[in-house]
Amino acid sequence: MTTPARRGRPRSENADVRILEEAHALLVERGYDRFAMDEVAVRAAVAKSTLYRRWPTKDHLLVALVAKIQDEVPVADTGDLRHDLSVYLTAIATGLDRMRRVGRDQTEQDRSAGVVAELVAAAARHPDVGDVVRNLFARRNALPLALLDRARERGALAPGTSSEVLFDQLAGALYYRLLVTGAPIGADYVEELVGQVLAGSGATPHSEGI
Amino acid sequence: MTTPARRGRPRSENADVRILEEAHALLVERGYDRFAMDEVAVRAAVAKSTLYRRWPTKDHLLVALVAKIQDEVPVADTGDLRHDLSVYLTAIATGLDRMRRVGRDQTEQDRSAGVVAELVAAAARHPDVGDVVRNLFARRNALPLALLDRARERGALAPGTSSEVLFDQLAGALYYRLLVTGAPIGADYVEELVGQVLAGSGATPHSEGI
Repeated sequence: MTTPARRGRPRSENADVRILEEAHALLVERGYDRFAMDEVAVRAAVAKSTLYRRWPTKDHLLVALVAKIQDEVPVADTGDLRHDLSVYLTAIATGLDRMRRVGRDQTEQDRSAGVVAELVAAAARHPDVGDVVRNLFARRNALPLALLDRARERGALAPGTSSEVLFDQLAGALYYRLLVTGAPIGADYVEELVGQVLAGSGATPHSEGI
Repeated sequence: MTTPARRGRPRSENADVRILEEAHALLVERGYDRFAMDEVAVRAAVAKSTLYRRWPTKDHLLVALVAKIQDEVPVADTGDLRHDLSVYLTAIATGLDRMRRVGRDQTEQDRSAGVVAELVAAAARHPDVGDVVRNLFARRNALPLALLDRARERGALAPGTSSEVLFDQLAGALYYRLLVTGAPIGADYVEELVGQVLAGSGATPHSEGI
């Protein structure tokens, strides 16, 4: 079924889908360090030239893969903001946690950020990969940001709240724990985080005098 | 002034200080990719064996360097929590922003996380570097966490507030913007972030009925 790649020819969507599927499988098996582009070409049954013309390095290919995985996380708007945020962030946290363990020995003590950190570094290393990653997050985050905008409009958020700052507090906490402190990001933590972000940490006028 | 390194001999603190100073200067000149351990040994006038016994890879050395830089950021407690948090986080953001630009062309459009991302990846790659980084942050973050604990005790934070979750919201937002979305982390942003974290984003009982 493989067609030899030719310059100027429209890219085959089927080939892209096959490449991303095989890249995903290989990443889960091997992890970032031992992930080899040539092996993806063999397993997806495409010419190496097809693969490299589409994604010039493994960093480019793996970022495309992350984009695909992220696009599969739904953002529901049930009208219960606290619930919707908890569900969405738990899905993000679960995906991040799964990705950080990819291709490595599954030991309980292991707190490494794994592939997630390698992708962050890849985005910092190649300007074009960085642009792709930043555009990917801008596009993806538009969904939860719209959820927050609607919540503010119906009065479920304080009028002056910035959706962007609010989302930074939530997603930022998860990435900070994953990438920097190595603290767990399970469902219990997400519950507590969402509750505290919405409630605020400052003393209320009522409690201030106590 | 160099003394040949010998096995079992106590490490020279002076050599460590010289190595870290030269490593810092070289990192600023070259950036992460073109940072070479051997050049640090030459510039610090220490035997290569001394350098490599103390820090086996450039990842190890650069993490030690970041630890030193971080230890220079003060945490003041003036009794005005909002002010103290803004000052501390602005210092952190400024340090992160300076580090991300290290060794690279200074263009305004450049949003790469640079060396910060490389260090996050180094921590994920080497289990021992990861342990050093996590211990470094645990030790450092104990200072702002104690600041938050004292604020809660004197009634400047809501009684049920978790200092750790609160700090995740603040530091996390900065790292998330730096490492993932590439959004700026200037003093204006820090002000807005601290204000919103303390005030909370949820509708207050008063505004809920509107």
